[in-house]
Amino acid sequence: MRRSTRKEQDPDLGILAVQLSARVQREIFARAAERGFDDARPRHGAVLAYLDPEGTRPGELARLAGRNKQTMGAILDELERLGYVRRTPDPADRRAKLIVPTDRGLRFMEVTDGIVDQIERTLADALGSAPYREFRTALGRSAQSLPAGGHDTEA
Amino acid sequence: MRRSTRKEQDPDLGILAVQLSARVQREIFARAAERGFDDARPRHGAVLAYLDPEGTRPGELARLAGRNKQTMGAILDELERLGYVRRTPDPADRRAKLIVPTDRGLRFMEVTDGIVDQIERTLADALGSAPYREFRTALGRSAQSLPAGGHDTEA
Repeated sequence: MRRSTRKEQDPDLGILAVQLSARVQREIFARAAERGFDDARPRHGAVLAYLDPEGTRPGELARLAGRNKQTMGAILDELERLGYVRRTPDPADRRAKLIVPTDRGLRFMEVTDGIVDQIERTLADALGSAPYREFRTALGRSAQSLPAGGHDTEA
Repeated sequence: MRRSTRKEQDPDLGILAVQLSARVQREIFARAAERGFDDARPRHGAVLAYLDPEGTRPGELARLAGRNKQTMGAILDELERLGYVRRTPDPADRRAKLIVPTDRGLRFMEVTDGIVDQIERTLADALGSAPYREFRTALGRSAQSLPAGGHDTEA
């Protein structure tokens, strides 16, 4: 059997993980685009998935997203230019910066959190709610079993 | 509880899927780099995960990887420049092109297929082999439950 046919019929873990990640992100950003957020891109999710309404330190966002600080800085520049976040001095430490969502950023966070909930309900219906819960637990345990790193693995 | 803390302690499906994909790819390409393939990048996996030793049509690679033809063309240009693949006329249709791995491309495919096997064994040991098999099945079913699309979702 051709390798391409074997990989399509019995995809390995690398292929399955990329497929799930790409398809979930595609759904999130396609549905967000229909809600008026057509300038947001999956790479922006590294920030917007974790950002606190009250603001988050850039270094903390880099740690949470497993991206290096240079990559995080570039994503933050884009999001600031697109009007999703702004950089403000941290009231707790005037020398430190805090990334704060704009009203548009806050709406995006609410909308996409809702979209992810919808996708999870879709998968729970497809797999069954108990099997889906087990799948989600195994997904987290598998990710935790591998090094997090601070690289932009999409680079 | 802060949103960032909640997302870290109880990550949603979008975060879990990106974490697994990013960490699996990081492992594959970090271990491949130790084996002398330090110029390969995760985006190149869209081709090298599926490529046939005897060659594959570019359109078929785009379909398998769920990338649009423009993105696939750019990845193929890089891989040709890096010496992993070459474009040859398709013997079955001289007007069509075939993407064929070079000796270096073939070695990379063998090495990374072995690395993915190792990662799968590591996760099977961590989760237990039966739970890991169930997880893998659920991973495939979840990916199949979402639209594949032909977009470069990492763009």
